[in-house]
Amino acid sequence: MINTKNVQLGKVRSSIRELFEYGKIRKAEIGEDKVFDFSIGNPSVPAPEIVRDTLIDILNEYDPVLLHGYTSAPGDFSVRKVLADYINLRFKTNLSADCLYLTCGAAASLTIVFNALLNEGDEVITPAPYFPEYRVFVENAGGEFVVVPSDKQSFGLDVAAVEGALTGRTKCVIINSPNNPSGAVYGESDIIKLCTILEKHREKTGNTVYLVSDEPYRELVYDKEITVPYIMNYYDCSIVCYSYSKSLSLPGERIGYIAVNNGMKEFSDVYAAVCGAGRALGFVCAPNLFQQLIKKVYNVTSDISVYKANRDRLYGALVSYGFDVVRPDGAFYLFVKSPEPDAKAFCERAKEYELLIVAGDDFGCGGYVRISYCVSPETIERSLPAFKALAESYR
Amino acid sequence: MINTKNVQLGKVRSSIRELFEYGKIRKAEIGEDKVFDFSIGNPSVPAPEIVRDTLIDILNEYDPVLLHGYTSAPGDFSVRKVLADYINLRFKTNLSADCLYLTCGAAASLTIVFNALLNEGDEVITPAPYFPEYRVFVENAGGEFVVVPSDKQSFGLDVAAVEGALTGRTKCVIINSPNNPSGAVYGESDIIKLCTILEKHREKTGNTVYLVSDEPYRELVYDKEITVPYIMNYYDCSIVCYSYSKSLSLPGERIGYIAVNNGMKEFSDVYAAVCGAGRALGFVCAPNLFQQLIKKVYNVTSDISVYKANRDRLYGALVSYGFDVVRPDGAFYLFVKSPEPDAKAFCERAKEYELLIVAGDDFGCGGYVRISYCVSPETIERSLPAFKALAESYR
Repeated sequence: MINTKNVQLGKVRSSIRELFEYGKIRKAEIGEDKVFDFSIGNPSVPAPEIVRDTLIDILNEYDPVLLHGYTSAPGDFSVRKVLADYINLRFKTNLSADCLYLTCGAAASLTIVFNALLNEGDEVITPAPYFPEYRVFVENAGGEFVVVPSDKQSFGLDVAAVEGALTGRTKCVIINSPNNPSGAVYGESDIIKLCTILEKHREKTGNTVYLVSDEPYRELVYDKEITVPYIMNYYDCSIVCYSYSKSLSLPGERIGYIAVNNGMKEFSDVYAAVCGAGRALGFVCAPNLFQQLIKKVYNVTSDISVYKANRDRLYGALVSYGFDVVRPDGAFYLFVKSPEPDAKAFCERAKEYELLIVAGDDFGCGGYVRISYCVSPETIERSLPAFKALAESYR
Repeated sequence: MINTKNVQLGKVRSSIRELFEYGKIRKAEIGEDKVFDFSIGNPSVPAPEIVRDTLIDILNEYDPVLLHGYTSAPGDFSVRKVLADYINLRFKTNLSADCLYLTCGAAASLTIVFNALLNEGDEVITPAPYFPEYRVFVENAGGEFVVVPSDKQSFGLDVAAVEGALTGRTKCVIINSPNNPSGAVYGESDIIKLCTILEKHREKTGNTVYLVSDEPYRELVYDKEITVPYIMNYYDCSIVCYSYSKSLSLPGERIGYIAVNNGMKEFSDVYAAVCGAGRALGFVCAPNLFQQLIKKVYNVTSDISVYKANRDRLYGALVSYGFDVVRPDGAFYLFVKSPEPDAKAFCERAKEYELLIVAGDDFGCGGYVRISYCVSPETIERSLPAFKALAESYR
């Protein structure tokens, strides 16, 4: 009688959450330090101290009526201006404050963008592996979720696969680089190829496909020579969804933004649709205190050296134990080939060694598992004998 | 090609916002103190000092990884426990922490509840005058928005009108007391009558109608003898949407909750649907810092004596000038009968006196205007000659 789709969605926990809850129970049973929980992508590095200091300064200095009052729906103009200027400086774009729409984090950015763009039955293409909630968000906005494979060697873009999936109903391609769960960063040449096929599709069919880039992991890249291309430099009909959840270790505070490329012909309609969708979904404005924070720390990043050290240690160890792993360039995940075809069975066996890792099936990529290495270096160190024993159990 | 409904929604500003923007321009032209802006319901009383002090204490004392990390989707359990206990103490309910779902404010509460309850074509009944975004939220969730009149003498509930609008497709009645824009508080006898007809409807047709109470103004009641009945005490299938926006003057921070009555038979499905809808709409969790704040100041209210003084002064003055006004018991609005049938024409004439007030048409109640008295007492005082001259222009 009530909305059964949402009843179902509320009752079925994601398998990541399921495992996380199992971990909590297991830790209570055998001890916190005996369970190696690699299930969840919750930053383990604290927010930089300047975050606390700035929040306290703002609370002490600002008029509370203004500080805690409503901002305009897209966000405080002065905050958007600072962010637009920073993006322009960094990526040589030409955005104004009115290209930005501040949001309650990346999930909000995505639901707003999908609701802004999609009509019932429109298709959204995404390469697998992908963040599982994409499917929920697309389908809730009335869209069809279309999955294409990635390059299995590198988890880089398989542009031909995207091209093969384009139809007259394709409204959007969503990419996520650095990628959750593979850690892959899409290189410039692949981005150029992708944008070229989208442009050709538009020329041939008259159908515009929007390229949406979900970038919560943009700042989490561990090698100087790796750059994450900014899609607005390659394609006019592009939208960036950014979040400070990982870059500033603020996932619970819900702050991010949508940037709409003002190089697109239909910019004013697309931006209006973003505002309209935000309004219809009930996002009145992004939390004001955190808007004011971001205005001051827009160019700060948490100390990601811990993640880099974790990546290097765990990657090196797993390879030495015989696991087949693609070395990730960013994010804080390792995507490991399961030694048996059924990744879920592998995850179950890992549990016997108190290792909590997630099967790739939920990410649209069976036969692999995700290991979230946003944990303490001590946890990594303590877990290594368990990974070694797990590997040996497959000899 | 993109979602035209949301393009439209983003382009057409509400007439309240329109007037607010006009006010900003007009103030720049003739001076801040020459324009009397009664357009917007933005609290003018600052958050209590304990809000700032508590936020600073939390920032200084809590581990930032936990403080700024994800909470569970319905909110931190310990926060929900404190709130449930407080509700139980205050209203003699028997809620557990798992009846509550913390949200990014009242708008989020409403969109989540409508998406949880409604299937395509289901009807939502609301008495006019009503908060205009209700229509947007209901229609975006696939519902039909059904408006019934209120008692025109008091703006109290017209229960017979609700009864007459019940059909086999009615899923929900939404009430808002104290009411925006009328300031009316629905008395206990009317709530009992309303619940009785909903129960009779269920018995007769087998169709359950959920009673949703939108309560951002619950704490803004100015006379000791006025109480706002708690609907869970009268009806099993009831849901309360609460927000701290007005009670703690935190509208820009987006914090509130949904409380689902555990006395209803289908509680677990309804609560699951709330969780599912929150997930599908992209609300990952309510801002964690403000969750922790609420845990500590759950029973604090901003100093509302200013609003009470404003109400008394403005109500008294307007009546003495000959305006027809129902004395409001709560919220911070006066709903005034337009001296000419066309309230929009009246608002235009008010503008000539630099008085910015909103026509009731948007609230589903033509022939009236809303005056938001959440302004400084000085603004009220300075505006009185203008109101007097406006009244005299109709003699």
